[in-house]
Amino acid sequence: MHVHPARDPMPMAFASIPGFRFAAVSAGIRKDGRVDTALAVADAPVAAAGLVTRNRVKAAPILVAAERLRAAELRAVLVNSGCANACTGEPGLAAARASTAAVARELGAREEHVVPASTGVIGALLPAERIVARAPELVAKLSPNGIDDFALAICTTDRWPKLAEATIETPSGSARVLGIAKGAGMIHPDVGPPQATMLAFLFTDAKVSARDLGRALGAAADRSFNAVSVDGDTSTNDLVLALASGASSASVGIEALTAAFDQVSGELARSMVRDGEGAEHVVEIQVRGVASHDDARQVARTVATSLLVKTALFGREANWGRLLAAAGRAGVPFDPTEASVSIAGVEIVKHGVTLGNEAEAEAQRRMQDRDYAVELRLGGGPGRFTYLTSDLGHGYVDVNAGYRS
Amino acid sequence: MHVHPARDPMPMAFASIPGFRFAAVSAGIRKDGRVDTALAVADAPVAAAGLVTRNRVKAAPILVAAERLRAAELRAVLVNSGCANACTGEPGLAAARASTAAVARELGAREEHVVPASTGVIGALLPAERIVARAPELVAKLSPNGIDDFALAICTTDRWPKLAEATIETPSGSARVLGIAKGAGMIHPDVGPPQATMLAFLFTDAKVSARDLGRALGAAADRSFNAVSVDGDTSTNDLVLALASGASSASVGIEALTAAFDQVSGELARSMVRDGEGAEHVVEIQVRGVASHDDARQVARTVATSLLVKTALFGREANWGRLLAAAGRAGVPFDPTEASVSIAGVEIVKHGVTLGNEAEAEAQRRMQDRDYAVELRLGGGPGRFTYLTSDLGHGYVDVNAGYRS
Repeated sequence: MHVHPARDPMPMAFASIPGFRFAAVSAGIRKDGRVDTALAVADAPVAAAGLVTRNRVKAAPILVAAERLRAAELRAVLVNSGCANACTGEPGLAAARASTAAVARELGAREEHVVPASTGVIGALLPAERIVARAPELVAKLSPNGIDDFALAICTTDRWPKLAEATIETPSGSARVLGIAKGAGMIHPDVGPPQATMLAFLFTDAKVSARDLGRALGAAADRSFNAVSVDGDTSTNDLVLALASGASSASVGIEALTAAFDQVSGELARSMVRDGEGAEHVVEIQVRGVASHDDARQVARTVATSLLVKTALFGREANWGRLLAAAGRAGVPFDPTEASVSIAGVEIVKHGVTLGNEAEAEAQRRMQDRDYAVELRLGGGPGRFTYLTSDLGHGYVDVNAGYRS
Repeated sequence: MHVHPARDPMPMAFASIPGFRFAAVSAGIRKDGRVDTALAVADAPVAAAGLVTRNRVKAAPILVAAERLRAAELRAVLVNSGCANACTGEPGLAAARASTAAVARELGAREEHVVPASTGVIGALLPAERIVARAPELVAKLSPNGIDDFALAICTTDRWPKLAEATIETPSGSARVLGIAKGAGMIHPDVGPPQATMLAFLFTDAKVSARDLGRALGAAADRSFNAVSVDGDTSTNDLVLALASGASSASVGIEALTAAFDQVSGELARSMVRDGEGAEHVVEIQVRGVASHDDARQVARTVATSLLVKTALFGREANWGRLLAAAGRAGVPFDPTEASVSIAGVEIVKHGVTLGNEAEAEAQRRMQDRDYAVELRLGGGPGRFTYLTSDLGHGYVDVNAGYRS
């Protein structure tokens, strides 16, 4: 129970999803020559919904994607790693358009039915000509079984690709949801109606309207991607996209779809946090007892992004003083003398004071676990919210003090 | 010009300041046996003003200090390191009162004229009996020349004590301001009218009212202590205190006093950032061109606390994409295509796009400097604000992943 492996790769055998094909090639965008360009295509234009970063600084592909998402109908998504194509001005927009146009031509699709997404270093212009040159090969490789290739090609600092799935059973048959995502750093997503670098793609064969797809996606994203943090930094390139092929005969309601999206988004978001740069633990910050949901979210977010909290989690130290100090600076009213703190199920603070060394020592032992929860009960109010965070240590500094070089 | 020493200790020879005496002893509060208890005393009750942390979780000494500051008149401040006496409930309040009462008795002063301050680990109860036992020795040691002892005793993770001074020249004579502070981690002060662990004490022999003292202190604190960040974490114990002995015959106006407080507070705040746990650089984040002062402050604060920005500064990498991405998530409107970025005087981004590799390489060379500025011009608006921040690397993790052990 107190043992954890160094990493937790997601299983890599996901069945194909009716109505969609996938492929990836190396277009020479990444310096290391790895596969860096991925394509997912629906057999025909399908219902689509998307959320893009709320960062004021939006990458060129995000601006193009936001524009194209208005039509609520898409055919394909073209993703590259190795270059964010952010802060690249008009040439960046032209590059995003040229690469999607080349893929559209090969597919016989309309250009505006292909959405671009990019992840990598900010400030470098996407070398669109390299993608244009490989577009025929990329389209020729499309296969229902190209899922793993797609998932690998979109990774940057990720230690493993991120996939998750759910099945929706109905009296009229079943439908599936397949999720593919990437993300390990610059992870503090804040995505909203047309807003990585978290990238997450949900594919379903359910027959649903673009409106229901958008509602299910919005609800699921707020409870998953928008409730995790690796480093508190929101990217210029975050994109969450859902496509519904309608290939399933099942009649799927919005609740069932939302539940399936919740499950898949939750798994992908947790995998991102587990893959947080240098991270060894995934910790649920559970806040309850404040006046409202929004207050609880604000406290949970402040604790989940506190450097002193995250370095204490790295040090496996039951430093509850840092937890309460972070909660106290969130700008949310609560009475510290009413506050309780539990770590991994062990109550260590009650009515604002320590329950003693034994409880702390037991909590500290449990902080060896790979996953655990920190619970802050701040009073009797109904507000509650849970944020997922990772510990932060030397690995994070190593990754980020020399990322571009 | 591009060479920097590993540290920047403040000079340690400060002249005595008329009307005040200082002392420090080791009361056995710190495990390492270092001096840990400091006392500063005015010859008689004097005008006083203070600002305490705005954190909802306030340490016992802060609660007692806030109460006693209402009288606007104080005789002494009693400070211990090694124990924050925070989250210690009623016993914590009793300990703060018992230790100040013992000192008051020795001084022949009123208990409520002695303000307590503490810094150290949160959650441990102050062993007041140890201070009570040493109170006679502490008071006996008081001397106009005890300034350095006082400054050393209040340090925790600080690599050097922090002192600064200013002289106010007037036609009727001169007055001085002496500042003593501590702070290297959990540094993101947010102090306001009765609200560390930054502790800062300003002593002046100027003859000013408590009201003017408070106004000068509030203005200076907002431009200094409240505009610096080491790790984004606001302490439960932050306290800024000013005492004016009135021993000088000079007639000092509020502007002159504020200017002197600005100078002394600015030097102390910069010294804290330079001493930021594991920090090698002090970087001014200058934001201009947004709609208002408050908007500029919000952007500067977000950039100054971004982990990706701070690790890039540690890596001496001109990663302007992270600068703009952090600005973009501050919630402040600006047009990214109007944004310019300069590092150490070298413009590297104009109209939202890079000015090329040569400019970036030159900026990167200058990032070897110990101190430099990052300037973000985000448009044509009048709002501007400057935040001081430090880089963040392995040293920070080392200090904070095992602080209590």
